[in-house]
Amino acid sequence: MRALANDTLLRALARQPTEHTPIWLMRQAGRYLPEYHAVRERAGSFVALAKTPALAAEATLQPLERFPLDAAIVFSDILTLPDAMGLGLGISEGEGPRLERPLRDEAAVRRLAAPDPARELSYVLEAVREARRALAGKVPLIGFAGSPYTLACYMVEGSGSDDWPTLKAMLYGRPELLHRILEVNARAVADLLNAQIEAGAQAVMIFDTWGGTLSAAGYEEFSLAYSRKVLAALSKESEGRRVPSILFTRGGGNWLEPIAASGCDAVGLDSATDLDAARRRIGHKVALQGNLDPAVLLAPPQRVREEARRVLDAFGNSPGHVFNLGHGVSPRASIEAVAALVDEVRAYSRKLRERAA
Amino acid sequence: MRALANDTLLRALARQPTEHTPIWLMRQAGRYLPEYHAVRERAGSFVALAKTPALAAEATLQPLERFPLDAAIVFSDILTLPDAMGLGLGISEGEGPRLERPLRDEAAVRRLAAPDPARELSYVLEAVREARRALAGKVPLIGFAGSPYTLACYMVEGSGSDDWPTLKAMLYGRPELLHRILEVNARAVADLLNAQIEAGAQAVMIFDTWGGTLSAAGYEEFSLAYSRKVLAALSKESEGRRVPSILFTRGGGNWLEPIAASGCDAVGLDSATDLDAARRRIGHKVALQGNLDPAVLLAPPQRVREEARRVLDAFGNSPGHVFNLGHGVSPRASIEAVAALVDEVRAYSRKLRERAA
Repeated sequence: MRALANDTLLRALARQPTEHTPIWLMRQAGRYLPEYHAVRERAGSFVALAKTPALAAEATLQPLERFPLDAAIVFSDILTLPDAMGLGLGISEGEGPRLERPLRDEAAVRRLAAPDPARELSYVLEAVREARRALAGKVPLIGFAGSPYTLACYMVEGSGSDDWPTLKAMLYGRPELLHRILEVNARAVADLLNAQIEAGAQAVMIFDTWGGTLSAAGYEEFSLAYSRKVLAALSKESEGRRVPSILFTRGGGNWLEPIAASGCDAVGLDSATDLDAARRRIGHKVALQGNLDPAVLLAPPQRVREEARRVLDAFGNSPGHVFNLGHGVSPRASIEAVAALVDEVRAYSRKLRERAA
Repeated sequence: MRALANDTLLRALARQPTEHTPIWLMRQAGRYLPEYHAVRERAGSFVALAKTPALAAEATLQPLERFPLDAAIVFSDILTLPDAMGLGLGISEGEGPRLERPLRDEAAVRRLAAPDPARELSYVLEAVREARRALAGKVPLIGFAGSPYTLACYMVEGSGSDDWPTLKAMLYGRPELLHRILEVNARAVADLLNAQIEAGAQAVMIFDTWGGTLSAAGYEEFSLAYSRKVLAALSKESEGRRVPSILFTRGGGNWLEPIAASGCDAVGLDSATDLDAARRRIGHKVALQGNLDPAVLLAPPQRVREEARRVLDAFGNSPGHVFNLGHGVSPRASIEAVAALVDEVRAYSRKLRERAA
């Protein structure tokens, strides 16, 4: 076990006391940073950046150079997994991600198989290894994947959507086909996360970005059931240390109790869920991660500080909180706002602990 | 008081026993109906259709000709109100609604005033009167408006958005300007709904389509506080009968308790909220409306019937349920699916009552 200079994130995820509330931000390596645009330009495209380990590792570390964040998250994309399944990833500027060969007939669904990460996603694993080396034990590195359901959304629809008509037509019209896709995805996600852990990821996160577009019954049947399978199959330890898992569900506020009981170490919350209400509903069984409205980062630094304090106050002064946004950093966020946020979370959470002591 | 041939909706909203669970559908007069396309073509555009009372009344009644629905909802658009405030409504094919002169500076916000519905929205009131005449007491007519917050979203952003950056920048950067808009909107919405009641609307609904994009604290401060003002200002009776109000919040599952205590007669639920869980959380103080996933209407009729029974079973056999979708009917919904849904809700809810008797 290599020592970590700052293991605040891992202790908070284990609901142990920490000197301050750890903070990292979804999409912290991204378009609000000029140096990110530069490295993407050098790569040639978003996809090329994700597939070039040295550059992906560089992008991973960029936000850490600017802000005293408590974690890095490997620069990658959830759609690298469907890409490795042969669906063809393309991301056009301003249009968002797109799969070139979505699953549109039964034969394509039957052919689908979980890839071998060591062979077909070696660039992700190499990016994890390079980022770990470059971090040199400064903060932990988080690995990630999309949830089986969220991946299926893109794999069937072919691109993002407000209401996922193709996916939903399959869900209600041919549910057995969707279940077959989800079975494959659950295996593929677990394999990919375990390979990232093996390559050096010290925590893992599952992004269920689209689970919240399901009905309550549908969420249990098509999303949570498969995230649970992933969580059950994950390596629990690496380098002599627990590898905690975070399950983030956008729009999942209705289902906090079953999410907290899914086998994850932490529940990632979007901004609509009140942290205090969430704690009362699910107790202290798991840690909570979240949940500042990403739009706060469009406001002046003083307002950012006020809103950050509000989130910290809502959670209160007990262990088990990882500060984050309720969704990814917006490309329009200002660097000054992010700097103010990280500074305020660290300073104010220390103050809260001193007051309580 | 003119007698209604079918007052099932009004009795269900009053949590009185009914012979079957009443059903109507958000956007039931809409693009999935070929006759709707025909009347819109005759009008020339969506905006012209909304502004021509005879044609709007015709569109209002179209779904009733096909399906034994338990209510009509006046054909209109929530953006007619900002249009009457001088913001200029335009809806381009396939692009969704757009306001030509969004509120982008303090002077524009200071100038904003609630319109007089009798003068500036007379076409909405005339559509209500014509639809009432044409319905001839068959089923009740529902009037509606957007919530103060949802209207403000469009009034500041100018069009729909995934993350409302302009609106959110005002919310966090200049909240006093947004509060001023919301004050005007609350007055304008209450005036418009009261004018619709006066013109013959027998129930009213407030659509808070975008409240769910707020943080928990933001929802209370910027959305619910102003919907509450509207509800407090509504006429409670007309034609000797209670005029019930329904508050629908898309993505509002986290806030059911305060929504139920807002002064509305019924809470409109999106599909993510389990009806049974909602009932347990808020008791029997208010009726519940919802909440079949609109995507079910893309599936074969047999599946539609199964999913309809699931929603009815989730609510259980007690008074106070109005069947609806969790959001509007999709343009891709099939007429056969809607027919199967309406038939199944009526037949199966009767069966449930017989079993219990």
